[in-house]
Amino acid sequence: MKLASYARHGHKGVALVEEGRLIDVTALAPDAPRTMRELLSWLPGQGDRLSAARDEAVPTIGFDEVEFLPVVEDPHAIWCAALTYMSHVREGGDRPVPAHPLFFLRVAASQVGHRGPLVIPRVSDELDYEGELAVVIGTAGRHIPQSRALDHVAGFTCYNDGSVRDWQRHTPQITPGKNFESTGACGPWLVTRDEFGDPYRHRMQTRVNGEVVQSAAISELLFSIEYMVEYLSTICTLQVGDVIVTGTSGGVGLRRTPPYFLKPGDQVEVEIDGIGTLVNPVRKEEADR
Amino acid sequence: MKLASYARHGHKGVALVEEGRLIDVTALAPDAPRTMRELLSWLPGQGDRLSAARDEAVPTIGFDEVEFLPVVEDPHAIWCAALTYMSHVREGGDRPVPAHPLFFLRVAASQVGHRGPLVIPRVSDELDYEGELAVVIGTAGRHIPQSRALDHVAGFTCYNDGSVRDWQRHTPQITPGKNFESTGACGPWLVTRDEFGDPYRHRMQTRVNGEVVQSAAISELLFSIEYMVEYLSTICTLQVGDVIVTGTSGGVGLRRTPPYFLKPGDQVEVEIDGIGTLVNPVRKEEADR
Repeated sequence: MKLASYARHGHKGVALVEEGRLIDVTALAPDAPRTMRELLSWLPGQGDRLSAARDEAVPTIGFDEVEFLPVVEDPHAIWCAALTYMSHVREGGDRPVPAHPLFFLRVAASQVGHRGPLVIPRVSDELDYEGELAVVIGTAGRHIPQSRALDHVAGFTCYNDGSVRDWQRHTPQITPGKNFESTGACGPWLVTRDEFGDPYRHRMQTRVNGEVVQSAAISELLFSIEYMVEYLSTICTLQVGDVIVTGTSGGVGLRRTPPYFLKPGDQVEVEIDGIGTLVNPVRKEEADR
Repeated sequence: MKLASYARHGHKGVALVEEGRLIDVTALAPDAPRTMRELLSWLPGQGDRLSAARDEAVPTIGFDEVEFLPVVEDPHAIWCAALTYMSHVREGGDRPVPAHPLFFLRVAASQVGHRGPLVIPRVSDELDYEGELAVVIGTAGRHIPQSRALDHVAGFTCYNDGSVRDWQRHTPQITPGKNFESTGACGPWLVTRDEFGDPYRHRMQTRVNGEVVQSAAISELLFSIEYMVEYLSTICTLQVGDVIVTGTSGGVGLRRTPPYFLKPGDQVEVEIDGIGTLVNPVRKEEADR
């Protein structure tokens, strides 16, 4: 199954995605889920009800009739990993391979959904793309061993961990440059684990204005998804809807010769086979009026 | 005014704190706020209604009848600053004074309220205290200039930014060591800005088992609260209920000779004059059963 969060006519909902249209789960019943966190909690045991929705008179909506929201709009945590692909470690110079993934957090308001504009902030011209695979937690847990880690995963989605490079270098903590409003894109939708299958058999690709700038196999990850789930759940309970953004491969704009930073009018695509393509236009934040 | 979040008999609410008792704001009316984020949004224009509650037949509750929750239980963001007092910069060796505060984020589940136990995780014996002043946002805003920064502040509270030192050193990103479950204490309550007055005339003190281990004037901050609000709101909209934890002074356990890490049975107090004392016992996380 593919599951999306959307806004339409001032209300928000969640939907099944099929054949280029949205089947509105929120319209199923008065007590139907309205957010992805609710949907993921409600899902176990409701598979039949959801499948039936495909054949029933549930409203369907065209992609162009909605605003796609970040797959999980209000997660308790958005954990992001850095330096998890050798090609990205090496393009930064003679950096040692880290013993652990470098984890930092993003806030929800730093995100946009599929088709939402990525915003170059007023204070910087150094917005960079980072195409990544994101994991969404479906079953809460603490101290999850690697052997059971994937049981806690609801599904997968594409992520563009947009980074404001100069602000990322203000201090040794990269968090500020990773949290500018509307710089992180998550979407277009969640693909459930059963449908996505073995995550390590998939590839991801990032394109800017159609040019391929990043291309990697998920199997190149230096730390497995199972390891990340175990590591993070050692720290704190992973909650339903928590997002783990697993890191980017070589090819970021900062490391190109000359460096390339996103410009207004650019379009960035992050495609992962088995999921689809997350597409975002780029614009500059408006000046104060 | 002093405002607290609490849980009691399986429900949660918010309350005015007066003379050692809680006046239950949530019981005021069916549409009364149930969370601190709701209370802070509802507050403007409701001062009279809230004041009247003191004289009316609104239920009051003794401190011992409730579980205090973190002042804001579900904030959109908990921004934490590091290296913002010279006494703490210097005790770490010959570290340069940073050009910007080092900001990282905490997740909500890393927090406990007043009297809640701080938990030494299974995987570490290096849980350390950090007494700090926390600022709670009352009015959302982006690009807030320093001159108007305090207008966006609802009030202040005490924070213990409990840190798991070995996990903080896994990588250059300190976020993991700052996010262990039930290691950050926030409380006992929020004191509104009008009541707290000039934040820089206050002092804070941390005590472990009654011994004073940290003592500083808020005026020693290397970066003003106004600067932090401007800096963070340049990055992303500060939302109602967002928490800014302003950093710790010299005296952390890690830098004592020999280092002192918290032990089961310890009690940590963070007192800020004008607010009160945040008290937390310490226990060890239970082994897997």
